[in-house]
Amino acid sequence: MEQTAPTLAELQTLIEMTGTINMEVFYWWCTGLMVIIHAGFLAYEMGASRLKNALASGVKNILAFAFIVPTFFFFGWWIYLAMYNGFTPDFEAAVAGLPWSTSMGPNLTDNATGIFWGAFVLFAATTASIFSGAVIERIRMSSFLVLAIVLGSGVWILGASWGWHPDGWLTKEWGFHDFGAAGCVHMIAGFFALGVTINLGARIGRFAPDGTPILIKGHSMPMTIIGLMLIIVGFFGFLGGCIIYAGGAQWTTIFGTPVTLSAVSFNTLMSFSGGIIGAYFITRQPFWMMSGGLAGIVSAAPGLDLYYPPLAFLLGITGGVVAPLADKILTEKFKIDDAVGAFAVHGVSGMIGLIALGIFSGFPNVVEGAPDISFSGQLMSAAVMALLGFVPGFGLSYVMAKVGFLRVPPKAEIAGLDLVEVPLEAYPESVPATETPVKTSTVTA
Amino acid sequence: MEQTAPTLAELQTLIEMTGTINMEVFYWWCTGLMVIIHAGFLAYEMGASRLKNALASGVKNILAFAFIVPTFFFFGWWIYLAMYNGFTPDFEAAVAGLPWSTSMGPNLTDNATGIFWGAFVLFAATTASIFSGAVIERIRMSSFLVLAIVLGSGVWILGASWGWHPDGWLTKEWGFHDFGAAGCVHMIAGFFALGVTINLGARIGRFAPDGTPILIKGHSMPMTIIGLMLIIVGFFGFLGGCIIYAGGAQWTTIFGTPVTLSAVSFNTLMSFSGGIIGAYFITRQPFWMMSGGLAGIVSAAPGLDLYYPPLAFLLGITGGVVAPLADKILTEKFKIDDAVGAFAVHGVSGMIGLIALGIFSGFPNVVEGAPDISFSGQLMSAAVMALLGFVPGFGLSYVMAKVGFLRVPPKAEIAGLDLVEVPLEAYPESVPATETPVKTSTVTA
Amino acid sequence: MEQTAPTLAELQTLIEMTGTINMEVFYWWCTGLMVIIHAGFLAYEMGASRLKNALASGVKNILAFAFIVPTFFFFGWWIYLAMYNGFTPDFEAAVAGLPWSTSMGPNLTDNATGIFWGAFVLFAATTASIFSGAVIERIRMSSFLVLAIVLGSGVWILGASWGWHPDGWLTKEWGFHDFGAAGCVHMIAGFFALGVTINLGARIGRFAPDGTPILIKGHSMPMTIIGLMLIIVGFFGFLGGCIIYAGGAQWTTIFGTPVTLSAVSFNTLMSFSGGIIGAYFITRQPFWMMSGGLAGIVSAAPGLDLYYPPLAFLLGITGGVVAPLADKILTEKFKIDDAVGAFAVHGVSGMIGLIALGIFSGFPNVVEGAPDISFSGQLMSAAVMALLGFVPGFGLSYVMAKVGFLRVPPKAEIAGLDLVEVPLEAYPESVPATETPVKTSTVTA
Repeated sequence: MEQTAPTLAELQTLIEMTGTINMEVFYWWCTGLMVIIHAGFLAYEMGASRLKNALASGVKNILAFAFIVPTFFFFGWWIYLAMYNGFTPDFEAAVAGLPWSTSMGPNLTDNATGIFWGAFVLFAATTASIFSGAVIERIRMSSFLVLAIVLGSGVWILGASWGWHPDGWLTKEWGFHDFGAAGCVHMIAGFFALGVTINLGARIGRFAPDGTPILIKGHSMPMTIIGLMLIIVGFFGFLGGCIIYAGGAQWTTIFGTPVTLSAVSFNTLMSFSGGIIGAYFITRQPFWMMSGGLAGIVSAAPGLDLYYPPLAFLLGITGGVVAPLADKILTEKFKIDDAVGAFAVHGVSGMIGLIALGIFSGFPNVVEGAPDISFSGQLMSAAVMALLGFVPGFGLSYVMAKVGFLRVPPKAEIAGLDLVEVPLEAYPESVPATETPVKTSTVTA
Repeated sequence: MEQTAPTLAELQTLIEMTGTINMEVFYWWCTGLMVIIHAGFLAYEMGASRLKNALASGVKNILAFAFIVPTFFFFGWWIYLAMYNGFTPDFEAAVAGLPWSTSMGPNLTDNATGIFWGAFVLFAATTASIFSGAVIERIRMSSFLVLAIVLGSGVWILGASWGWHPDGWLTKEWGFHDFGAAGCVHMIAGFFALGVTINLGARIGRFAPDGTPILIKGHSMPMTIIGLMLIIVGFFGFLGGCIIYAGGAQWTTIFGTPVTLSAVSFNTLMSFSGGIIGAYFITRQPFWMMSGGLAGIVSAAPGLDLYYPPLAFLLGITGGVVAPLADKILTEKFKIDDAVGAFAVHGVSGMIGLIALGIFSGFPNVVEGAPDISFSGQLMSAAVMALLGFVPGFGLSYVMAKVGFLRVPPKAEIAGLDLVEVPLEAYPESVPATETPVKTSTVTA
Repeated sequence: MEQTAPTLAELQTLIEMTGTINMEVFYWWCTGLMVIIHAGFLAYEMGASRLKNALASGVKNILAFAFIVPTFFFFGWWIYLAMYNGFTPDFEAAVAGLPWSTSMGPNLTDNATGIFWGAFVLFAATTASIFSGAVIERIRMSSFLVLAIVLGSGVWILGASWGWHPDGWLTKEWGFHDFGAAGCVHMIAGFFALGVTINLGARIGRFAPDGTPILIKGHSMPMTIIGLMLIIVGFFGFLGGCIIYAGGAQWTTIFGTPVTLSAVSFNTLMSFSGGIIGAYFITRQPFWMMSGGLAGIVSAAPGLDLYYPPLAFLLGITGGVVAPLADKILTEKFKIDDAVGAFAVHGVSGMIGLIALGIFSGFPNVVEGAPDISFSGQLMSAAVMALLGFVPGFGLSYVMAKVGFLRVPPKAEIAGLDLVEVPLEAYPESVPATETPVKTSTVTA
């Protein structure tokens, strides 16, 4: 090729192959960066646990990841390809997702499947990790794993097939648009967590006999907030994975509409900042500031491709203000113990996000025959996502609770799960206190 | 396109679009990796605080990030585009940076602005984080935020417009060259920190009544050094962001001179290693080893594109040796309390870096009419950067100190900022000792 | 170029330059992500140390990195280019690796060397970090550094030249294939560690007088397992760095055989998950779960380009099951104290990986004249890697032990290395207990 000038067709092949391998590289880095989300969740959930449960929380988080990968290989990916019509599988379209398909493994003529599958697995593991924080310190290991697999390799990917797929029926019928997966990832995980926490019940000591909530403090807030910042790092992989790289053409969303990474860069940073600031003014403390930052991104996620950045900032503030308040209501009014506020941060913010895009609607869709983005379309789709998360979470955990399979015995909970589940100590040389030191917050700077 | 051979013009469009989206990808990853710098700074500054101030340090760090993003959107980016001549804004060139410009948001014909803006915001947040470490454990939250915004969305970006811009007057007039932003990021942040620490004063107990310095130890050195290693990870995003990706052409520096990533790879790793080794021989301890590694990179940063790698290694050693010594002089001679050595690590090393490139000068510039890199040009530019950082930091904090707005009351400082500012405890289950255990370092291995 | 249509030759140049700079970008991110491996190792090894040795372990880890970079510049890279024939250097081929070569520094006509060198340096630092965990809490700093340099800038790169090089004699003669460096990185580091631990001896208190092993617990298991998850993040850089990016052509392995990143994505995630699950069923604890995940990837590493993903999953389970059992045998039968199980996780799993690919052999090689991948070829090559790691590690440490240079004095070991080596405390405000609290693991959930 260096000697004689190439033909036009040869050059075209060269350019297209350049696009193909760069596409692979892009999703490879998305996947790698999303693993940081799991380093973050590990730190976050262990730090949010009391000393006596720190390692048990870590074990659950790691195992959820480990079980989602093979189940997502064996049936999760197939669900995504098959179920975009609702409940009627398209067996033909999903042939490529059968575990014995030639696309599901090394295949020199398919540079795409493995890399997309990898990114989707990490999304799946993220949904499971969102859920896992809510139920720490009292759920039984085996029931947790069943629920995590159902959520990570079943429910969320069904939601993705419906509303985060080029042919998903929510988009085709209702014009649904959700750039950053606020629906299928965040809302579904949050509402699934809500369903489970209702049946699981509060941790012993979380409410006084008269129903007054008593805050159970995690043993290491620094570990938790560093973990949350690592999750934000991973969001750059997550949000990158929400875009279609198409070689020598403009980026598109998963719905085929054009987008630039520049738009996502503006709006991600603006909504994250808004969320921190919103939560700061409500709570003044770093757990909610970082959770608020997350809630801010989720609240703008459906329109990160479309919003004017100051609007993303305002939506971020909204998410950051609402999340701690929603969690307060959940705890004080409904007496539900969601240990890390997963429902408020992901479920509520995801809903805000979907509905907000309906309010600022009118953007066209390019899917054949799909209506424009509309308030009603976003609202109805949000309701579908809420139900799709809540019903399986509530139903399955209801049955588990009935057969006494959902929760560890009170004796084990009081002794601490590390003692009964993990043959290892978190900090063998430290001296845990038996009482939490009293702190008065009346002095102000 | 698959059926018939494309025309030359079609192929050209295809290639150029490939270049455009790969450019976006490149800066997107730079931005994502730079968020790791903030996970690192969070760990680093909380670990370097005493137990009673750990969360308050984290809150400040997170809030600085959050406030810099919108302010950098509303005026920071405009300053960069407008002020390259000095103090006379070029209103025309800066139109694209006005917050209502069509470039400042989703725009399918502009794949560049948002992604560059994102990378610059992360640079801005880095300058603020460099500063924030110096003032922990006694600065008032509100005054800190004002200072952080002035530095992060004002002063440093003015310096960048002057000396880290294709048309910056420092380059045009004096041939200034600073590949890795040793001037506008590190020197300005370091000298700003110096200016503020002078007016802020030392923490209570930092000096004995006779002036002898008493080391105040951070509560978790492991957290601090892991944080510093994460900052080094983020440097790969930072230094990547110092290069111009131009599609199908050789990389250039921000000054238009050609460079390869290979050169930066060699010199970054060599100067980092040199810095660690230099600091190890002086101090034998990991806080300064990791800070020395940072100082090493900064000391070679202006010429990472130009140096022979063993020279970068020697400059790294120089930075690693000088930083702890400079901090010792600052503390012992000048009785200034810079809690993490920010001035020594960033201010002094940045100055070493700029002047060193002047010593090894003679490299040509390509900016129209710009003189070659010279000793005098680098020296004068270093003086400009020092002043540009110091004067606003000192001036503003002087006024704040005069009106009693700069520092928390002694009662709050003694009680600990977590108690007075943060309604949350860092480690509710641990038992903090009231006294630091005595350690004698006379035994040697 | 915008005005008139380009010629075919101009377009070709444009495309090829696009490939060149994207190649640089790819390895630049590999290098940056591999620095996360070192943030991970830092957390992992400090967490696995007792309080009294935490910082000393960190110092060793950081210094190993720092010393490997320049030594790899001055002779490591040369070894790789020169020694592919065995022990007869090819001086001509290695001219480009001499430290005064024009390729070993900024060179606008060589976009490749620095970026490859950078990735290889990070591989080198990883081998040293694998080794460093095994010998914590009693090795002398200076002897550790000599051993780390010999391993990181000498032994492993000789192994890479033999078996991880397009012309390496192991491939040419025996058809050796090892996609993910299970041999030259993991086996060599693991067997080197084995050789050193034999001569170094167990930590005081590791075995009762009758030889019964007594587990020495690291002071922070959360820090250790977060560190291990960060290492997994870095593996995406490491495994990316095992592939050749060739511009507009399909990816190849280092042996020239074609591969896709998709294949690596499938098999990395599947083998990691298998390893976690395997280790969970044997041990139920997170240290071994995360180590098992690592062992799982290493057990599948030689064939990540070739395996059907469920096979990678099974190999992962195998690695995850065998690693803790191998470590148990090493400790209980052979009374060897490998503080983090480095030999079991890297040495044993690497050997499993190489031999497993021999069992599933028959894949063709493309190196001129090289035989197909075969059981005997993989087995013999594994033996070579084992010896190449073990002999220098054992021999050198044997001499060091004889001259009393290998280990710190018992008094220093009992007092703790932080006290004698590091003028800084890990946690100045915490109260370390003198005894480990008793824990009974008989209660089950």
